[in-house]
Amino acid sequence: MNGSHLDDFLRFLSFPSVSADSAPAYRQGVKECSEWLAGRLRAAGLVPEIHETPGNPIVVARNAHAAGLPTVLIYGHYDVQPVDPLALWHHPPFEPHVENGIVTARGSADNKGQILAHILGVEEGLKEGNGKLPVNLIFLIEGEEEIGSPNLAPFLEAHKEAFRCDGVVISDSPMIAPGVPTLTYGLRGVAAMEVSVYGPAKDLHSGMYGGAVENPVTVLARLVASLHQADGSVAVPGFYDGVEPVAAWEREEWAKLPFGAAELLAASGAPALGGENHLGVHERLWARPTAEVNGLYGGYQGEGSKTVLPAEAHAKLTFRLVPGQDSASVLAAVEAHLRAKAPGSVRLVVTPGHAGEAYVTSPITGWGAAAQSALRIAFPGKEIALTREGGSIPIVGDFRRILGVDTLLLGLCLPDCNAHSPNETFPLANLEAGIRLNRALLPELGAIGGGKPPIK
Amino acid sequence: MNGSHLDDFLRFLSFPSVSADSAPAYRQGVKECSEWLAGRLRAAGLVPEIHETPGNPIVVARNAHAAGLPTVLIYGHYDVQPVDPLALWHHPPFEPHVENGIVTARGSADNKGQILAHILGVEEGLKEGNGKLPVNLIFLIEGEEEIGSPNLAPFLEAHKEAFRCDGVVISDSPMIAPGVPTLTYGLRGVAAMEVSVYGPAKDLHSGMYGGAVENPVTVLARLVASLHQADGSVAVPGFYDGVEPVAAWEREEWAKLPFGAAELLAASGAPALGGENHLGVHERLWARPTAEVNGLYGGYQGEGSKTVLPAEAHAKLTFRLVPGQDSASVLAAVEAHLRAKAPGSVRLVVTPGHAGEAYVTSPITGWGAAAQSALRIAFPGKEIALTREGGSIPIVGDFRRILGVDTLLLGLCLPDCNAHSPNETFPLANLEAGIRLNRALLPELGAIGGGKPPIK
Repeated sequence: MNGSHLDDFLRFLSFPSVSADSAPAYRQGVKECSEWLAGRLRAAGLVPEIHETPGNPIVVARNAHAAGLPTVLIYGHYDVQPVDPLALWHHPPFEPHVENGIVTARGSADNKGQILAHILGVEEGLKEGNGKLPVNLIFLIEGEEEIGSPNLAPFLEAHKEAFRCDGVVISDSPMIAPGVPTLTYGLRGVAAMEVSVYGPAKDLHSGMYGGAVENPVTVLARLVASLHQADGSVAVPGFYDGVEPVAAWEREEWAKLPFGAAELLAASGAPALGGENHLGVHERLWARPTAEVNGLYGGYQGEGSKTVLPAEAHAKLTFRLVPGQDSASVLAAVEAHLRAKAPGSVRLVVTPGHAGEAYVTSPITGWGAAAQSALRIAFPGKEIALTREGGSIPIVGDFRRILGVDTLLLGLCLPDCNAHSPNETFPLANLEAGIRLNRALLPELGAIGGGKPPIK
Repeated sequence: MNGSHLDDFLRFLSFPSVSADSAPAYRQGVKECSEWLAGRLRAAGLVPEIHETPGNPIVVARNAHAAGLPTVLIYGHYDVQPVDPLALWHHPPFEPHVENGIVTARGSADNKGQILAHILGVEEGLKEGNGKLPVNLIFLIEGEEEIGSPNLAPFLEAHKEAFRCDGVVISDSPMIAPGVPTLTYGLRGVAAMEVSVYGPAKDLHSGMYGGAVENPVTVLARLVASLHQADGSVAVPGFYDGVEPVAAWEREEWAKLPFGAAELLAASGAPALGGENHLGVHERLWARPTAEVNGLYGGYQGEGSKTVLPAEAHAKLTFRLVPGQDSASVLAAVEAHLRAKAPGSVRLVVTPGHAGEAYVTSPITGWGAAAQSALRIAFPGKEIALTREGGSIPIVGDFRRILGVDTLLLGLCLPDCNAHSPNETFPLANLEAGIRLNRALLPELGAIGGGKPPIK
């Protein structure tokens, strides 16, 4: 381990840059961290800028851009999660502890280790290239990722020209298993909906009215039950319209992954897996849409029994979307299905919520192929995992929507890194691997060439 | 209106005999009310006793019993509901207000008006009979009905011989419509159950796990949905075993009632009625068992959306039972049904709760016929409503279980009397009708004869 790399990492981790807490120490931590970061980017040979926002500053840095080179935007965040519950930490979260090559500190895996690796990689590249890089580089490092990036999209919208690029690189997703270089090339989208069922004007006595007045909770349970077929698929007509099938090469790649049904079952703690059991788990998690109840409630929830026929019942639903689906069409299809199923003895209220489309890019052509080459160099002798994710990363959608570009998601932290939990860890070996990854990636992307695409 | 009757009623209503509130004023109200009641029973010509219990006193009074006469136990309660919300009362709840022949006060309809009517009727009967009644009479007036009668059954168990009787009379149920004399001859039973579904070890991210890990809320919704057929009947195998059909005379009586589908719909406030729509509403409410969800909850219930795959879900169920069903068998059948339906991807926990059997007696023979005759005398020219109730009255089951006798349920309060609500009312005409009812009933029951049955 390079001693100066470690010093940089420990310094970066010492700032309590918690974005979700307005306590003065954290406000100070955010401010000082952004200033340190700008200084470190300047020391690396880049030109930094600190952009104030209504929230926390956004740190930007560029090299000297040259015509004809592709422009690469490396995104990251210097803010970190809160530390609660503090009592569960084995060491103070902002006093980094190094043991057996592992650094324990808040923000080590999410996302300071990865950001620093990219900066250190660029610093080395600039030195070796006598101040020149094979790409036009933009670092975009925000301070509000852990609170939902409220000021990032407006900032990008307001400065589209300044962030015109050929693609984005993010290292903020996990490796699928320790030591396995991971390129994530797809994300599911999401569409939310609240469903309310109203029956009697008020809660009724279940003895006096039960049997002749419809129970809204029962009706809602039937509606939820009607969302799925017996085989685990979604029963809403039109729900699968446009769903893109999994390619043969994807099935082959997924079959090789060191994370399958057994690992998923163990991670979940469930008695057995569920859903579309006739399909593989990777397809079910990454390439199949879902209809999920995030919450359902109606009637009495206290101790013991209360013989009430509830007046209303509510469900919070989200639908995970896959490429080829359209969130508005899915929400409309679900609402039509629910309205067709609801009896006239209740009043149904359907409220659409937030939505974001699924994302997929090719990991085997263009930038994807370049990223694979770089991962092979950074992790010599290792098989590369080509994965999608079942969740959604809204900023990836923002980059596509606002800048019109795709994103490479390059995993550098371990799946058990305790991001968002006490005792967050990042191996120093992964810091070094990240530096190698950056050193290899920029020449690969530079070799592809290209130039700034038109801003949409 | 007899002025002394009104004076008695206003005095009885002035005691704040709230059983659910331990405030000193209410403790005092309970004590003074029981003492006033014992005094009033003595003044009527009976021999009163005040029995202390771990809670509120039970007031008992008897005439001089004679061999060969049937023994009639008149049950009532002198405790009343709390008065909250006090601001909604148009007059202070314990300062009775009389207007247009209607008394407004807490306890007027539940149950002081009826109790007083029986006492005044007995007083008149004793006077006319020169100290003799056509029956052996026992008044049993408790002070804890509104908190679930915790000390009544133990008291009866401990004094079985002293309360040996041929039957019980209770006037604590509503008339089915204003001015309609009502004899209630059946009650549904109830059996409670909690159902919990456990899936993953903790709440999971619905994006990362959704599609391959079963959602416990969805599973519980399916289980609830599986409880019913499309026609509204209960789908649990064996659920209807032993259910007694409605007799032809009952259908005829119910068809004549001034309370049917339209009145039920209006009272419920629901958009339309539900359940077994191919059956009449009286049969559905009184003679058909139900499977009701009193509460269901799982996952996120807060504002907005949270993309969680919940670890568990819970439902509180009650089953209303009808004559011929057995609560233990019903609970066992439901549990077997749920276990057969639950997938192996979740853990199902079923917890049986309280249970009480259904009750039915004949309103057209024996005491039932005598009660009808008395109602005809008390409400001249009125058609008598023969009804069952959809709810359960546990003390009726206690009297059958402990004393081995049936109960006449004679309605004297109006359906819109605001029992348990602000501005509780009781018409003075119903007080007088209650006196007439008592005056007519005791000779009718005396004419049937009988004697104390063996205590079981």
